[in-house]
Amino acid sequence: MVIRYPNGQSTTYDDGKKQKMQEKLIKPKTYANRGMRFEEAINESNLYYLNRKLAVIHKKPTPVQIVKVDYPRRSAAVIKEAYFREASTTDYNGVYQGQYIDFEAKETQNKTSFPFKNFHPHQIKHMEDCLEQAGLCFVLLWFSSLQRCFFLDSKCLVSQWHLQKETGKKSMTLTYIETNGIEIIPTIAPRIPYLKAVDQFLTMKENDEYGK
Amino acid sequence: MVIRYPNGQSTTYDDGKKQKMQEKLIKPKTYANRGMRFEEAINESNLYYLNRKLAVIHKKPTPVQIVKVDYPRRSAAVIKEAYFREASTTDYNGVYQGQYIDFEAKETQNKTSFPFKNFHPHQIKHMEDCLEQAGLCFVLLWFSSLQRCFFLDSKCLVSQWHLQKETGKKSMTLTYIETNGIEIIPTIAPRIPYLKAVDQFLTMKENDEYGK
Repeated sequence: MVIRYPNGQSTTYDDGKKQKMQEKLIKPKTYANRGMRFEEAINESNLYYLNRKLAVIHKKPTPVQIVKVDYPRRSAAVIKEAYFREASTTDYNGVYQGQYIDFEAKETQNKTSFPFKNFHPHQIKHMEDCLEQAGLCFVLLWFSSLQRCFFLDSKCLVSQWHLQKETGKKSMTLTYIETNGIEIIPTIAPRIPYLKAVDQFLTMKENDEYGK
Repeated sequence: MVIRYPNGQSTTYDDGKKQKMQEKLIKPKTYANRGMRFEEAINESNLYYLNRKLAVIHKKPTPVQIVKVDYPRRSAAVIKEAYFREASTTDYNGVYQGQYIDFEAKETQNKTSFPFKNFHPHQIKHMEDCLEQAGLCFVLLWFSSLQRCFFLDSKCLVSQWHLQKETGKKSMTLTYIETNGIEIIPTIAPRIPYLKAVDQFLTMKENDEYGK
């Protein structure tokens, strides 16, 4: 059986037991059949960082408007009617070495550009608010067809987003992201080692090199 | 009509229109009839801080396990079965002048102590994790019968919580909170001016005076 790694590598296993262990570790079926589940990979990475006391970053729960709740027993309230609400912030935030971290993770099947429609106006506004409070704010962009992941400072995204009105462009090119972002090579654990990109970003920012 | 302010002040209005406007602004019925809705007051304070670009702090959505969703129309998915999940973090977090802020807000009707049962073990663990990452982590404690609100550094709460095993004490005394916390006097806007306590805490911490 060939196990496809998110970074395009592949390995063959003969030993059934070893294969099962590996499957459990890296969930190859997910990658092979319908691409890497990006969100799941990030959640696992967050857990990796949390367990090793490297950072405390959580995904926010999906916002839901609860309308009707049944209480058949006190211990088991059942929500019988509820609706999805639009989130007013990004999905992920937390703390890393005293630094406020805030990010959104998005994926596209496109191969040459990342569509702006993936981001809602209120998320752009939230990023602007966080940047103004000196938060470390970024997006993780996953090109599922290319199996490539990028860290991009929200400042870049926000400025490109606002340029839409003038240029009419509905997306950021991969070239722009390659030039202005930091590529993250997926590993087995953590699956998306994004804190490495954060470190790199902070160092480059200190030396005034980011995006140059 | 007498409008009771959360800090115990009261004002009489003769002009019906003015009274209605005031009611809308400060919702006196809430205070008079069943005590101040503490969570609502904090959410409004967060909005106040957000609109004035003083801080970006949001309440996390209630975590819900969604089991069944109907899609009568694409635009109106209805959640038909879902369950409340236990939160793995505190309710509030965000960024204030580059500083990661994380807190939990709790209230009690007790007059002389604050019961530990208001805090779940996973919340205590989350506070410990955040403190370790140099996050600014605290609790806002509301004594509804006394109409008094306190800021308490999570370090104090966590150490008191762990002392339970040795002392068997099931709560923190008001005296302990008065000595180790910072009292927050509610105002009309923001209703719970907790950033003032945060500033005071940061200054005292710098001068090594907090809790002394």
